[in-house]
Amino acid sequence: MADIFHVVPEERHNALIAAAYRRRGYSGAEAAAGARFCASATRHGIRTHNGLKALHLDHQLGSGAAGCKPRARIEKIKTRFRGAQVWNANRKLGQATGYAAIETAIKLADRYGVGMVSVDNAFHYLWGGGYVMEAAQRGYIAYTNCTAALAEVVPFGGKAPTLGTNPHSWGFPTTAAIGYPIVIDWATSVVAMGRVQQLLREGKALPPGAAVDENGQPTTDPARAKSLLPFGAHKGYGLSLMNELIAAFIGGSLPTLRNRWDREPEEKHTCAFFFQVWHPDAMNAGAFARGRNQAENVKAVIGDILGHGNEGCMLPGQLEAEAAARSARNGGLLFSAAEIEAFNEVAAECRQARWKLSDFRVAE
Amino acid sequence: MADIFHVVPEERHNALIAAAYRRRGYSGAEAAAGARFCASATRHGIRTHNGLKALHLDHQLGSGAAGCKPRARIEKIKTRFRGAQVWNANRKLGQATGYAAIETAIKLADRYGVGMVSVDNAFHYLWGGGYVMEAAQRGYIAYTNCTAALAEVVPFGGKAPTLGTNPHSWGFPTTAAIGYPIVIDWATSVVAMGRVQQLLREGKALPPGAAVDENGQPTTDPARAKSLLPFGAHKGYGLSLMNELIAAFIGGSLPTLRNRWDREPEEKHTCAFFFQVWHPDAMNAGAFARGRNQAENVKAVIGDILGHGNEGCMLPGQLEAEAAARSARNGGLLFSAAEIEAFNEVAAECRQARWKLSDFRVAE
Repeated sequence: MADIFHVVPEERHNALIAAAYRRRGYSGAEAAAGARFCASATRHGIRTHNGLKALHLDHQLGSGAAGCKPRARIEKIKTRFRGAQVWNANRKLGQATGYAAIETAIKLADRYGVGMVSVDNAFHYLWGGGYVMEAAQRGYIAYTNCTAALAEVVPFGGKAPTLGTNPHSWGFPTTAAIGYPIVIDWATSVVAMGRVQQLLREGKALPPGAAVDENGQPTTDPARAKSLLPFGAHKGYGLSLMNELIAAFIGGSLPTLRNRWDREPEEKHTCAFFFQVWHPDAMNAGAFARGRNQAENVKAVIGDILGHGNEGCMLPGQLEAEAAARSARNGGLLFSAAEIEAFNEVAAECRQARWKLSDFRVAE
Repeated sequence: MADIFHVVPEERHNALIAAAYRRRGYSGAEAAAGARFCASATRHGIRTHNGLKALHLDHQLGSGAAGCKPRARIEKIKTRFRGAQVWNANRKLGQATGYAAIETAIKLADRYGVGMVSVDNAFHYLWGGGYVMEAAQRGYIAYTNCTAALAEVVPFGGKAPTLGTNPHSWGFPTTAAIGYPIVIDWATSVVAMGRVQQLLREGKALPPGAAVDENGQPTTDPARAKSLLPFGAHKGYGLSLMNELIAAFIGGSLPTLRNRWDREPEEKHTCAFFFQVWHPDAMNAGAFARGRNQAENVKAVIGDILGHGNEGCMLPGQLEAEAAARSARNGGLLFSAAEIEAFNEVAAECRQARWKLSDFRVAE
């Protein structure tokens, strides 16, 4: 049986999330950016990074701890380069910082063909795919990575968790070719720590090669899993290491001290973000076969890859596009009954109107 | 017992490779770039992409077929962007094109902070790691990918090989921090087709999840392996797809027609290259903990990752750095007896002085 979802009007969702952020001291603009981003995550079926998760993270590691500072101002660091910017985010809300950074990278790409924005002293931006998807919907190729909040991943061949789950996200403007942007977006661990906890609750085993116990020995028992492993052995390890290196060049902290504000005050404890946008006109050699234009060529290449018996393959971003189409058909954001109950608790905390299940119709 | 290697002076190696390229019609500059690159591959222990492989590839898919054109001229395509260039390589020798592209990307990064060079109608550049390693040795962060010569890899969930082994290569200027550049460099298939053939000769099994038979069913029998699988399930699939998409935006061919010059003449059959260089000063927020400078911060971060019980972990690029140190200690390039015999055949073909095993001392 398929899960039952209820349709929440986006304005009502955004008003509540924004009110919750305002109550924690964030500015109206920050609260609006935070709400808008969470709506986008839910609209695209990214249930792990919805508004509940965002507010929980902010409580646990953000304004409720020392990781995020309401009303912080982004400081632009002076460099001699015109196609790249470097920012000190001063721990500003991640979604507000992420939106501003991708916007600036787009402006730089419009001018130089490629734009780059490196962000020091950043706080969790939730779902990297959201920023690059939006840029891709506007016609750009975009890339982002960040250092994840906590060191939970063991380097290939090692024992101790000294890397973040360090995600990478790439978006491609393929809407003209296939109807939606291709978005390649994942953490560099096999699974997230949230998945370990979920399997523990459900009494299920982890996939092999996903986690190690407190002695660094592989385990599929979620109760014994203490740290995560990178996907793809040395290859995923390299991809995780990359985020730490990029962050280290920007100004990043030692990974094992990230968000550990109680330890070694002389060290930094913040995350870093890295954004790039490439203009597709700045890559176009203008000589496509059979007189195709760029979008037609991209469509032909994707058609070739998914032809020849591969018609059942998925494309990265396809599930997100299907979720967005379902949200649009239903005219709102889709939440489970348990999620609506949790939002109701948020509403009580903010003295906003209650969210009653009966207020929301069941989604198709 | 360790393999026995013999020390070939680099000048003698380069003279032979260059002579072989000249004999095939390449210019002196092309032949020199080809030889210099092969020497670098061997110096760093990249035995799969040495001069023998380069000459074989050129025979099989390059000037001996239609893939590569000696004395081709690179054409710069006009765009409105200042930080990016687009080239039509007109099937010029891959190594000469790769060296020129990374050099241009460095110049763009010096000026704009980030530089990008997209190359249409390219021929195999052999070892992407070589270009980014050189940029990293000179102080830059560099990235390259390309579409591999043939479609040998099955998309995640599919049956037919419609993707190349599509490699990615990133280099980081970590010499000041750890003594050598970190180079993350691999194909997006679990193994290369050459490895399948090697295991077949040795009567050994493939690792699970590396290959499928002619019906698209998984196999570990190298005799039945017809196509390769991406590493890391959907994640490696996404990384392989990325090269095809980037190539498609540049002007790339349908993957299943690449280097299939006998099929569909109205389509293109060439590869594409993509290069980026980022200036580390264009990412430096200048606020490292404990007054560290950028290199010291990178060193501290790497030290944290490889601390806490992870001291036995390798870093990407470490094996290559160790091979280069061994080459330097021996004062030349290290080849096996079988490789020297194969070079002797090349020498006979080019009417160059014979390579006799007794000419070369045994390496330490």
